Amino acid sequence: MPHIALPEGVPGIRSALQYRPETAAPLLQLAEVLLRGPNTLTSGERETIAAFVSSRNECRFCHASHRAAAAHHLDGDYTVVDAVRDDYESAPVSAKLKALLAVAAKVQQGGTCVTTADVERARAEGATDVEIHDTVLIAAAFCMYNRYVDGLATFTPVDEAVYDAMGRRMAHQGYVNRS
Amino acid sequence: MPHIALPEGVPGIRSALQYRPETAAPLLQLAEVLLRGPNTLTSGERETIAAFVSSRNECRFCHASHRAAAAHHLDGDYTVVDAVRDDYESAPVSAKLKALLAVAAKVQQGGTCVTTADVERARAEGATDVEIHDTVLIAAAFCMYNRYVDGLATFTPVDEAVYDAMGRRMAHQGYVNRS
Repeated sequence: MPHIALPEGVPGIRSALQYRPETAAPLLQLAEVLLRGPNTLTSGERETIAAFVSSRNECRFCHASHRAAAAHHLDGDYTVVDAVRDDYESAPVSAKLKALLAVAAKVQQGGTCVTTADVERARAEGATDVEIHDTVLIAAAFCMYNRYVDGLATFTPVDEAVYDAMGRRMAHQGYVNRS
Repeated sequence: MPHIALPEGVPGIRSALQYRPETAAPLLQLAEVLLRGPNTLTSGERETIAAFVSSRNECRFCHASHRAAAAHHLDGDYTVVDAVRDDYESAPVSAKLKALLAVAAKVQQGGTCVTTADVERARAEGATDVEIHDTVLIAAAFCMYNRYVDGLATFTPVDEAVYDAMGRRMAHQGYVNRS
């Protein structure tokens, strides 16, 4: 049961966004730019980073929904995003994405955990400065979204089909201007 | 030295915001609404929560700048914000703010650390649901800003006078529409 009087039956972050539209606007805009804005990283790669960080933060709602969004950028295939969660160094993703996931893992622990060696590895694998910037900010942002969702004890559906439908909408319609 | 090619000599988060204006817009808007928007918590109380969480995250830049912003909401007096950092339970702040700081401290550790008892204490001290919501989101947001600033190893001035001037601007001019 949520800690405060959020709209009933509305899952996860959406209940908090409906409760406080003043903060919802920049929170949704940030997600849209980070995960779906013009970028040399695909939306699938960025949603994979989001799902990965949410998993490390043990945020069930954000992990399940962004896992589904990542999958729906790959025609509904959950194999890659689940392999990244389980062991990203052996997952079937590019060497560049592995290096960026290593940066994201450090950010999840704390900003000062990111080392010059982490960044040099990403650059050696072909990551640009903007890609490194965006990876740091995606990881940091999900340390916020995850705490927001769980800090209010928002409603977390258990039916996987709910998340699959949610992820399909996130992947194809995005985060702003949703009905 | 920053991990990526941020604008030289620009301190902390401002260098990252200048580097990536696409994400700067929602990040600044979020800070403006959370810390300076219409609210039954004063801006001084909200900046105190921001400084407190930044201190717990050991983010030197964010702590020093929001500490100064909190002080400049109290005519430049640093006593209260420093007392909160050192031991908020004995600091000269209201019982309600102490209870909200306890919630913020839990959010800093992780969203699921917030208990029903933490929220009941805040409510018993007179906190509204919106105040509890905003406290959770301020604490969560600074877990993002702090990681963003340190994850890129942004330039951190050492001169306290730089932060005092910065905090004065943050308190009196805010976060958006700044030259």
